[in-house]
Amino acid sequence: MPLLENISWAAEEAQGNESSEHAFFSLDYQHVQVPFEITLWIMLASLAKIGFHLYNKLPSVVPESCLLIFVGLIMGGIIYGLNDKSPPVMDSDIFFLYLLPPIVLDAGYFMPSRPFFENIGTILLYAVVGTIWNVFGIGFSLYGICQVKAFHLQDVSLLHNLLFGSLIAAVDPVAVLAVFEEIHVNEKLHILVFGESLLNDAVTVVLYKLFRSFCEMPTIKSVDVFVGVGKFFVVGLGGVLVGLTFGMTAAFTTRFTKEIRVIEPLFVFLYSYLSYLTAEMFHLSGIMAIIVCAMGMKRYVEANISLKSHTTVKYFMKMWSSVSDTLIFIFLGVSTIGENHEWNWPYICFTVIFCLIWRALGVLVLTFFVNRFHVNTITSKDQFIIAYGGLRGAICFSLVFLLPDFHRKKLFIAATTVVILFTVFVQGMTIRPLVDLLAVKRKRESAPTVGEQIHIRFLDHLLAGIEDISGHWGQYYWKDKLEYFNSKYLQKILLREYDQPKSSIVLLYEKLERKHAIELAEAGQLGSNICLLEWPSHLSQAVLLCHSSPQPFYLPESAWMAQL
Amino acid sequence: MPLLENISWAAEEAQGNESSEHAFFSLDYQHVQVPFEITLWIMLASLAKIGFHLYNKLPSVVPESCLLIFVGLIMGGIIYGLNDKSPPVMDSDIFFLYLLPPIVLDAGYFMPSRPFFENIGTILLYAVVGTIWNVFGIGFSLYGICQVKAFHLQDVSLLHNLLFGSLIAAVDPVAVLAVFEEIHVNEKLHILVFGESLLNDAVTVVLYKLFRSFCEMPTIKSVDVFVGVGKFFVVGLGGVLVGLTFGMTAAFTTRFTKEIRVIEPLFVFLYSYLSYLTAEMFHLSGIMAIIVCAMGMKRYVEANISLKSHTTVKYFMKMWSSVSDTLIFIFLGVSTIGENHEWNWPYICFTVIFCLIWRALGVLVLTFFVNRFHVNTITSKDQFIIAYGGLRGAICFSLVFLLPDFHRKKLFIAATTVVILFTVFVQGMTIRPLVDLLAVKRKRESAPTVGEQIHIRFLDHLLAGIEDISGHWGQYYWKDKLEYFNSKYLQKILLREYDQPKSSIVLLYEKLERKHAIELAEAGQLGSNICLLEWPSHLSQAVLLCHSSPQPFYLPESAWMAQL
Repeated sequence: MPLLENISWAAEEAQGNESSEHAFFSLDYQHVQVPFEITLWIMLASLAKIGFHLYNKLPSVVPESCLLIFVGLIMGGIIYGLNDKSPPVMDSDIFFLYLLPPIVLDAGYFMPSRPFFENIGTILLYAVVGTIWNVFGIGFSLYGICQVKAFHLQDVSLLHNLLFGSLIAAVDPVAVLAVFEEIHVNEKLHILVFGESLLNDAVTVVLYKLFRSFCEMPTIKSVDVFVGVGKFFVVGLGGVLVGLTFGMTAAFTTRFTKEIRVIEPLFVFLYSYLSYLTAEMFHLSGIMAIIVCAMGMKRYVEANISLKSHTTVKYFMKMWSSVSDTLIFIFLGVSTIGENHEWNWPYICFTVIFCLIWRALGVLVLTFFVNRFHVNTITSKDQFIIAYGGLRGAICFSLVFLLPDFHRKKLFIAATTVVILFTVFVQGMTIRPLVDLLAVKRKRESAPTVGEQIHIRFLDHLLAGIEDISGHWGQYYWKDKLEYFNSKYLQKILLREYDQPKSSIVLLYEKLERKHAIELAEAGQLGSNICLLEWPSHLSQAVLLCHSSPQPFYLPESAWMAQL
Repeated sequence: MPLLENISWAAEEAQGNESSEHAFFSLDYQHVQVPFEITLWIMLASLAKIGFHLYNKLPSVVPESCLLIFVGLIMGGIIYGLNDKSPPVMDSDIFFLYLLPPIVLDAGYFMPSRPFFENIGTILLYAVVGTIWNVFGIGFSLYGICQVKAFHLQDVSLLHNLLFGSLIAAVDPVAVLAVFEEIHVNEKLHILVFGESLLNDAVTVVLYKLFRSFCEMPTIKSVDVFVGVGKFFVVGLGGVLVGLTFGMTAAFTTRFTKEIRVIEPLFVFLYSYLSYLTAEMFHLSGIMAIIVCAMGMKRYVEANISLKSHTTVKYFMKMWSSVSDTLIFIFLGVSTIGENHEWNWPYICFTVIFCLIWRALGVLVLTFFVNRFHVNTITSKDQFIIAYGGLRGAICFSLVFLLPDFHRKKLFIAATTVVILFTVFVQGMTIRPLVDLLAVKRKRESAPTVGEQIHIRFLDHLLAGIEDISGHWGQYYWKDKLEYFNSKYLQKILLREYDQPKSSIVLLYEKLERKHAIELAEAGQLGSNICLLEWPSHLSQAVLLCHSSPQPFYLPESAWMAQL
């Protein structure tokens, strides 16, 4: 209902006869501007996605993220051409408050927890030590470049270089996800790069802020450095704690939604978003919070809510993150166009080079140590892909616009833009051929069989027992303890119907059974008939229950035995 | 990632040692305020809903809408008590742009089209003539009350009374839906009240604006009145046209989403919201637009998108409209508290009385004419429920706040609030007992059988034939023509896989088959086995395909025939 119209309508009316044709139609764009433009942007993003897939060959060569940035560049060019001023840059607030959370939530909710926890040590090493290594490496070497007089960069201080290093060093989860979802490398390799990109958030937050505050301080005391180190733990662990609290509350809330199935999916989104916002509010790592929240609540929420609610949660989450992702890349393209840049070739080129070199060195050194302590080592091919997959994206971009104003900010913006475009376009487009060329181990496409599942389960218990006897408290020991704590206490509090739950193998069997029945029904023609065959132990013959007939058929053993 | 923090953090850092404990934690509420508060409101609404259903008896006596308003009143009281100033009223912009569309979309998408089109004439009569009747009836009789000197209301002009009448006369779809979904009256009665509440939007928009502009004019010419009449058609039919355009575009777009199933559900929401906003922008009826859009696209979109996408659409739509609905009633309660009211007992009491009387009279008179032209008449019990079900709600409330400022606005606000609370609480709570008492025909709970469906189909074709022969072009004739146009042209353009579509009975059979298979699988124990029994025409024996065994079992006819 058009309501907040301005007085113009009434004014037109008042003029009477002459303008009465005009009065039939009137336009009030301002009233609907905000939701209208948001909807149009989302629509553009979605239509662009459909467009790419109409030509089947295009997405198999060029990653979608590149195509989207390209669309953004064109859009930005059009806006720039029409208005003759820079198109609006992506608002950092919109990015961090509205676009990033859906993607991280989706990532956390569908995180394969087994490979993640199996490699948590390696991931943390890459995320924490690796990121610090990159920050200081890039910062100090760029400072070295600044000392060359011919480059006219002597006014860029060490602190500014380190600040720039802290924002350019972090691998971006959105960019990594967009590329790695398309190339299907093996699960371990995927989780190493992707896990690193998620967990480096705490390090990036702390270092970025530390250097930013150092830039504004007259002198830096050594105590400030220690505060920075302490703050890293607060930001990271605080985020985990916030996420855990909200995740458990979410699971507990879904215990009581049996009567109103319709709002069940809502709680998954509300609690995880609240965990993110709360963490943000206290300057903790929002990404850590939402990931922990999603991973923590998943198994309990899944058990509590109805199957259809769960389908809604799953599909809506995928849809939302896909839209966010699309918007981010388009905005990235749009924001690139304009007059925000200061070109200094040496600085920009050396930034790209140092980003590549320090990442490669970091992965080599860290993997050397990781491989010494693990039986299942990371091959040199995998190391190459880890180093090469260190894509930068919208987080760097938003961070660089948040820098306090100083005279070289536009140089940093230009360098960041080039690094992002270089990594997304050059590395993103060549990584698939390289994976093919190197014959990197791929993801297995089929789900594990029941037999494999039984063996994995059995081995877990066996290894937990061995670890307990040998006194070595490794991952299997802790996993076993956690599982015990979960079934003894958590499930009783958080699950609605808690009787001794069915073993996961029984559940899997039931699921397969159901799936198969649906497939059979879908394949069947009208003349076919679904039947259930049973061998009750108290009867010597098989019973066939068919839904077209009210009474069961009894089949004598002889009819079967001949064919078995 | 907490980014837009103010400089305070850096400042704290700069102070060094003393404040370094504080620097570990810092709070920046302002940064996350908007999304945080929205999320909290939605959370409150959802938790309130869960709360009601924990006590099973409460929602069966008191409608949920009343409980929610009550929660809102308490919340408003708390805010008023703490701040000592009126709590914020529901923003009309937020209501019309964000809260109303999901509810109307849900209503349109799940509108039972058969009863709706069968009764479209009656619904339009109630919605157009009935609403005009109520507006003028209430307006003129309140003007009469204003002439009584003892009431001190002589400064309220006739135009102001008519303006008030135009906003208080319209039955509210949100309130009607909330109450009628719980009382399960028969389909015809439901669609009459609900259809009226939706379609009266165009009338309300036009009359409200007309009187509002008249209030601001020095003199009113007769031509202005004709413009008003013309405008009604523009607003109503324009809304229909906008909705139809977007609905068909939506259906067409989903033809191309096969490769990216994940964003399919999005288009349903994007296009319908765009239709609403576009209609709003041109001052047409947004409600009509979104309803037509939803009804128009439904059958094509359903055929184009995947089953899981459709589940997502359905459940998300229900969830969203449920949340909007909840928020509206809570805000209604919150906004009631405060100092926006001017109490004038006679005016307020007579408003309530006139609303009741004019609606009852209107229904009686209009139904008298309707019954003269229909075989399937509206019984007097049904008439009573139609009159009694004329609930007012948030639309009136938002409209009254949008009135231009004049000295008696607070009186109108008070009267509107009382009418809404009276209809929602008194009528809403007594309608269920009354439906029981009068033994109003209820909704049938079971779905029609295949036999019934065949008969209905057959009768439709038969009646279309009879109408064609007799030269009387009634609803069956037009329905048949529309169906022909649809299968001949529309489906070819809008559906992805267009070969002669399966008859709806075949689809129903397949659905039943699938459902049954799932039930069988879920009921089956581990020892059981799903099999598919077929009688291929080229074999003399039945074939049993069981998923536990790779090769089929062949059953000789003799094994069956004995038992059939």
